[in-house]
Amino acid sequence: MIYLDNAATTKPSESAIEMAEKFNKEYFFNPSALYEGGLFCAKEIKRTKELILKNIGSVSHEVIFTSCGSESDNMAIFCAVKRGNVATSLGEHAAVYNSFLELKQRQRQVFFAKLNNNGSVNVDDLIKIVKENAIDFVSVVHVNNETGAINDINFIAKELKKINPKLIFHSDGVQAFGKIPYRISNEIDLYSISAHKINALKGLGVLLKNKSVRISPLIYGGGQENNLRSGTENVFGIKVFEYAMQEKYALINENFEKIKKYNLWARNNLDKDIFTIISSNNCSPYVLSVSAVGVKGEIIMHMLEKEGVIIGNGSACSSKHKHSRVLKECGFADKVLDGAIRISFSCDTTFEEVEFAINKLNENAKKLKGIIN
Amino acid sequence: MIYLDNAATTKPSESAIEMAEKFNKEYFFNPSALYEGGLFCAKEIKRTKELILKNIGSVSHEVIFTSCGSESDNMAIFCAVKRGNVATSLGEHAAVYNSFLELKQRQRQVFFAKLNNNGSVNVDDLIKIVKENAIDFVSVVHVNNETGAINDINFIAKELKKINPKLIFHSDGVQAFGKIPYRISNEIDLYSISAHKINALKGLGVLLKNKSVRISPLIYGGGQENNLRSGTENVFGIKVFEYAMQEKYALINENFEKIKKYNLWARNNLDKDIFTIISSNNCSPYVLSVSAVGVKGEIIMHMLEKEGVIIGNGSACSSKHKHSRVLKECGFADKVLDGAIRISFSCDTTFEEVEFAINKLNENAKKLKGIIN
Repeated sequence: MIYLDNAATTKPSESAIEMAEKFNKEYFFNPSALYEGGLFCAKEIKRTKELILKNIGSVSHEVIFTSCGSESDNMAIFCAVKRGNVATSLGEHAAVYNSFLELKQRQRQVFFAKLNNNGSVNVDDLIKIVKENAIDFVSVVHVNNETGAINDINFIAKELKKINPKLIFHSDGVQAFGKIPYRISNEIDLYSISAHKINALKGLGVLLKNKSVRISPLIYGGGQENNLRSGTENVFGIKVFEYAMQEKYALINENFEKIKKYNLWARNNLDKDIFTIISSNNCSPYVLSVSAVGVKGEIIMHMLEKEGVIIGNGSACSSKHKHSRVLKECGFADKVLDGAIRISFSCDTTFEEVEFAINKLNENAKKLKGIIN
Repeated sequence: MIYLDNAATTKPSESAIEMAEKFNKEYFFNPSALYEGGLFCAKEIKRTKELILKNIGSVSHEVIFTSCGSESDNMAIFCAVKRGNVATSLGEHAAVYNSFLELKQRQRQVFFAKLNNNGSVNVDDLIKIVKENAIDFVSVVHVNNETGAINDINFIAKELKKINPKLIFHSDGVQAFGKIPYRISNEIDLYSISAHKINALKGLGVLLKNKSVRISPLIYGGGQENNLRSGTENVFGIKVFEYAMQEKYALINENFEKIKKYNLWARNNLDKDIFTIISSNNCSPYVLSVSAVGVKGEIIMHMLEKEGVIIGNGSACSSKHKHSRVLKECGFADKVLDGAIRISFSCDTTFEEVEFAINKLNENAKKLKGIIN
């Protein structure tokens, strides 16, 4: 099987799981327990937090472990700023987008900035919204999960804070962390990460919080995570995440360049008579969205599946809708949306896999078009 | 090591983990994905849900997977009834108790029913509260995590609904599920379960919801869990939970009787000149709280640790407070609270372990008292 749906989820690192196994076998203790084993677990969690901050070059954030990227997004959106106007982009993941719709339901004023053609936020439109509407909270995705478009969040946050220094800025970094080399700036108040997108396990997320920002809990209880997120800490999940993250960050630049090459090769070798490239050249190399205009993306996906190649059709998270909400907002026509598929790489992807997949894509899309025409 | 702090967390079942490994190695797919691997994961999650309902004899509930017992409690408390007066007991776990304090902060009228001496709720007091205060939501823990006191939640829910048929009844079942044999009645609207308390992994919880009850999400996003709990499903955690649960339920009655015997033996063999028994005879046999009056529980805990025996001092979740809030509400004097320790069994606990632990407890407490006196 050639797995090219890594933006949906990734294969957990076997070495990371193996290294963390002792936290199920020997050190399965509750980190709140006051005996040695409990204290050891608490210390191990602390170490993971330090490494996360080191990897993204932050000295001003603290780490809150949550259960997933969606929880991190929800906590940022619902718990950081309890009143006032809020803004986001039309290119957000459902965890952000639907949370903003819920804020609207709760009578908050909600604004959505337009997208550029590649799925990045139109910064001028966002600045205009913040200038004109006394916005207290903004959320902009770091890397768009459908097109791979990269938003320069450090720049955007800085610009918005020139307008309103008290504004709280959140970014969903789920598709960026461990893939795109970057340093998080002081202006990023809140930042979401998901473990299962970087070859760790499902069931763990991170919310980074600038130490200067106050936030209330989404989940109350025993007071874990510095009183901000209650519930017994998922020690095993946290350690698998640490080990997988370290594997990623050891080679983050090398892998970025490698996947960039593969992505470019794929773009150049997709049959130009059939495929329209959705993801622009400056998108994250890990995501390549294209469309076989005139056919259905889902059908191509199933044809490829029979060849042993797994690709996605748009975001798995919005699989219930006919068209991708985000690609629609990028301005693509319905027939492009119909044929949209998403190829997403992992740092473990090999050139042979890319080559095989692209050849099969060309072959099958051609066959399908032949049948239809 | 003899581990007798199973109310805090349990050692994950190695066989359950082994059986679930394929969900990390082969079937690591996103259950929302439309290809075969994704559909397989979705089907496997459905199967786990059916087994949960079968084990507790319900035909009227549905299963919502969450990240932990605390999240389940929070979702029940914050998302089922959005306004009106609420009531709970003074014997709740922090995830319920602190959520009710938060409701109070949000200007809701909050009532706390008194406890009986063993930590069970004073039903008369609760009925009085519901009669006199137009209560729309009640939460009562099934098995108290500090004393093991069992509340007859089916009876309580039935009685309260005679007063207000529209009342929503929630119970935290974290210390009951997989340990106490019971059938959940139709009157239980919402019920919380935690995976890591039954030898599965940290990072997974369940909220059972009566199908007739409406609830809004705590976490918005991609619409997983029937639109009630967004975030990529923790497939591996869910399957480990299923396998561990099946191991528990295969022998739930036999284990209950076995632990009852060990518990009784422990009670009878603790040095009566030193120890006051906190947990009454009719408590869950899995929890035995006692107090070495006149000494500090934490010191005994550390002495036992040196002997290779792990016990708890009160709830790990409230380790930051000097005295247990719940034991205080049971009416115990400060010197009893000072000496409180919690011995909590697992179905894997052997008689030899209990014997060794109780002997060491007697020995060390005697030594300690000798030093002090």
